[in-house]
Amino acid sequence: MTAFDKLMTFQRETSALGQIAGRLGWDQETVMPRGAAPQRAEEMAAIEAVLHARRSDPRVAEWLEQAAPQDMAGKAQLREIRRSYERAVKVPADLATAIARVTSAAQGKWAQARADEDVAAFLPVLEEVVSLKRQEGAALAQGGDVYDAMVEDYEPYTTGSQIAAIFDAMRPRLVALRAAVLDRPEPAALTGRFDELTQMRLSQKLAVAFGYDLNNGRVDKAVHPFSSGSGLDVRITTRTSETDPFNCFYSTIHEVGHAAYEQGIDRDYLLTPLGRGVSMGVHESQSRIYENQLGRSRAFTGWLFEQMKTAFGDFGINEADAFYATVNRVHNGYIRTEADEVQYNLHIMLRFDLERALMAGDLQVADLEGAWNDRFKADFGYAVDKPSNGCLQDVHWSVGLFGYFPTYSLGNVYAGCLNQALRAAIPDLDAQLACGDTSGATGWLRENVQQYGGLYAPREVIQRASGIEPGPEPLLTYLEQKFGGLYGL
Amino acid sequence: MTAFDKLMTFQRETSALGQIAGRLGWDQETVMPRGAAPQRAEEMAAIEAVLHARRSDPRVAEWLEQAAPQDMAGKAQLREIRRSYERAVKVPADLATAIARVTSAAQGKWAQARADEDVAAFLPVLEEVVSLKRQEGAALAQGGDVYDAMVEDYEPYTTGSQIAAIFDAMRPRLVALRAAVLDRPEPAALTGRFDELTQMRLSQKLAVAFGYDLNNGRVDKAVHPFSSGSGLDVRITTRTSETDPFNCFYSTIHEVGHAAYEQGIDRDYLLTPLGRGVSMGVHESQSRIYENQLGRSRAFTGWLFEQMKTAFGDFGINEADAFYATVNRVHNGYIRTEADEVQYNLHIMLRFDLERALMAGDLQVADLEGAWNDRFKADFGYAVDKPSNGCLQDVHWSVGLFGYFPTYSLGNVYAGCLNQALRAAIPDLDAQLACGDTSGATGWLRENVQQYGGLYAPREVIQRASGIEPGPEPLLTYLEQKFGGLYGL
Repeated sequence: MTAFDKLMTFQRETSALGQIAGRLGWDQETVMPRGAAPQRAEEMAAIEAVLHARRSDPRVAEWLEQAAPQDMAGKAQLREIRRSYERAVKVPADLATAIARVTSAAQGKWAQARADEDVAAFLPVLEEVVSLKRQEGAALAQGGDVYDAMVEDYEPYTTGSQIAAIFDAMRPRLVALRAAVLDRPEPAALTGRFDELTQMRLSQKLAVAFGYDLNNGRVDKAVHPFSSGSGLDVRITTRTSETDPFNCFYSTIHEVGHAAYEQGIDRDYLLTPLGRGVSMGVHESQSRIYENQLGRSRAFTGWLFEQMKTAFGDFGINEADAFYATVNRVHNGYIRTEADEVQYNLHIMLRFDLERALMAGDLQVADLEGAWNDRFKADFGYAVDKPSNGCLQDVHWSVGLFGYFPTYSLGNVYAGCLNQALRAAIPDLDAQLACGDTSGATGWLRENVQQYGGLYAPREVIQRASGIEPGPEPLLTYLEQKFGGLYGL
Repeated sequence: MTAFDKLMTFQRETSALGQIAGRLGWDQETVMPRGAAPQRAEEMAAIEAVLHARRSDPRVAEWLEQAAPQDMAGKAQLREIRRSYERAVKVPADLATAIARVTSAAQGKWAQARADEDVAAFLPVLEEVVSLKRQEGAALAQGGDVYDAMVEDYEPYTTGSQIAAIFDAMRPRLVALRAAVLDRPEPAALTGRFDELTQMRLSQKLAVAFGYDLNNGRVDKAVHPFSSGSGLDVRITTRTSETDPFNCFYSTIHEVGHAAYEQGIDRDYLLTPLGRGVSMGVHESQSRIYENQLGRSRAFTGWLFEQMKTAFGDFGINEADAFYATVNRVHNGYIRTEADEVQYNLHIMLRFDLERALMAGDLQVADLEGAWNDRFKADFGYAVDKPSNGCLQDVHWSVGLFGYFPTYSLGNVYAGCLNQALRAAIPDLDAQLACGDTSGATGWLRENVQQYGGLYAPREVIQRASGIEPGPEPLLTYLEQKFGGLYGL
């Protein structure tokens, strides 16, 4: 065997073990008996230790030195293996252990503090998390920008400054669009009760309609919707609420976007570093375009309206245009995960600026709540009423996820670019969506984005698919046109 | 840290990884998407490779050398770790790989041959399996008895000769009992149709009644009932057939016996070599005593009769004694897994003698079918009609399980010993069972057997609990009394 073959054989086993660790996470959120939690923590720690040892195995460095890949895919494999290896050996083991221990405790303290509306109770442990993550960032950056090094974990080959430039261009137009929309009369909200079993059935139908392959996946219920796994075993979860079927349906479509990406990757890359979505931002571009540009389009909601009438009978909305307006209703709110397309990115930009300042040392943990509340007031026009609606609403920072938030909005930006190219490539797309046929759209996405997995860098795959340098203009134009039309601006 | 502590820390991680591998098996049989199978095979191979490397890690030998345990449990831990280590290093890696590869293919060929009733199509691959397993047995035995070395994998500290002595004492009395019973009129079989959802509900109730803790477990459906996992996460499966609710109920009770054993082990042994059932035979003693001596007793079936009437309404049996006779109906049949208490062990003895002869080289694979059919005729009095009812009925040999079959009957023998002691310890046991209260029985079993996990050797734990040298006499007496009464012998 050549060094390259040895490396890939080793890597294939590592990927297989990584899939196992991921499936343990799925199990924990869906079927695990409650009382198993302490044992599961030891199981997770054991497999993570195995994975860490393999990622930093000295033989990997030797093989990397000697490997001579034959083709472009081989070179891309080496690029990703090298990136993973270098990351693994840069962080001292005791620091990694300390981060794992502290974030595990911090998550519980965050949940308690949020329930108690007690920011002060959370700050000491957040202080520890921030301090350890800054040390980790410094170890990774090796003299470079700490926050950039963190972004690299979720959105490789992308810097904080690049993201800031995109966000800075978006913010004024989003603030203006939001103000104009909220100045107009609000469409009706959905009312009534919707049988949860029927929601799950329609949900499954939506998943299949969007090209999710149930032969290599399954749909379950969980507290938080998620997609899990790569290759031949990609599972999604959704949730139901008797009063809010849209939550179920659009969570499902969103997760199907993630899952279809994983299912759609070239099978030649199965269980290799290229055999999974290339970044969180590109992943989110798939979930967002499925959920929003396709799933919340006038054309598709017309079909969904008929499906819901068949499934639930009369539910108080009598007309497809009114249904479309209800689905896309813009409404004041504090919570990121409940935000509409117009306001969502403003929530992200707030977090991006604050976490970047925290990592740079320009913002102290003690000042976080004040900074959050000031910024929220500035962008949304009203004050945060309680911490659970403010800086305690998200789990991310408690578990050490710094550099992750911006990938949600990058996903929206990329979805905007892809949507523009998709519409140009399939002129009668709306006619297809109006029949509930997404195969033209999902086929284009598979062909132009999903199949490549990790072959191209994130911005490159979007650039190749959309034919333009990725930027916010298509998204902003899409939002202004869509909501301009909906609200008669 | 002392050498003992280092060893135990290492071992704890190995046990955690072993639990993960086991849960992958559960996942595969219950929830895995069908199309995931090829990827799952790689995942299983990857974690098995990790486990093998840890079991044969040279540091284990060093730590074993230096470790100085402080107490009896520590000494027992070392005994089990040493046994596992010595087994792992005795078998050459290429032989282990060859066995894994051939048995994986053989299982598919066996299933096809069984479907086609074509013994000849299975024999070549069985020949390979037998040859490889004999090599493995020779490597393990190092000059000793090959079959004994194989039994050691499933029933440590027990030899083929010991088992043969027990079986030889049982066979004539079982053949005689069987003949006498079948000479009498046969009780009515169950007829009618039984809603499968209601079966699952009653099944869950039975599981809880027998002390299964759903906080650390769950009940799912699978093609073959099984119990999976140790410690805080022990899951069982059962199955339903519209016409055969007893299959569902007694499969459930049987698996609850296995699961209660794992759940009942002293929590101090969690994720250590002592933290799981000590042998297949002792495991089976728990599943069998739950299923048969308790679950099929006159007292408990009286309670079950009422439960079934409540759940299903009138189902054609009007009287508790008749219900008891139907539950315990002895009926001619070819299939081991469908056999009643009287005939079951005859099926096992047949397999035990044949596989022992195969391993000794006294029986050739080419002569297996003839030997099977001759022996079946001798013990059961009629001829095998087709291979799927004969030597192709069980999966075990195709996957290399030699030395496993006798543990089923050892379990019955041990259950007989335990039942005798249990009845002596709880004189009013039948009054409890008649109310569906198994807590006296299951509490006694937890106290006297289950809590010890791997602390004592298999025969020792049975001897300590039952107060006698384990042997077949109590089982035979129990069977002769029970079926003598039922059939008026």
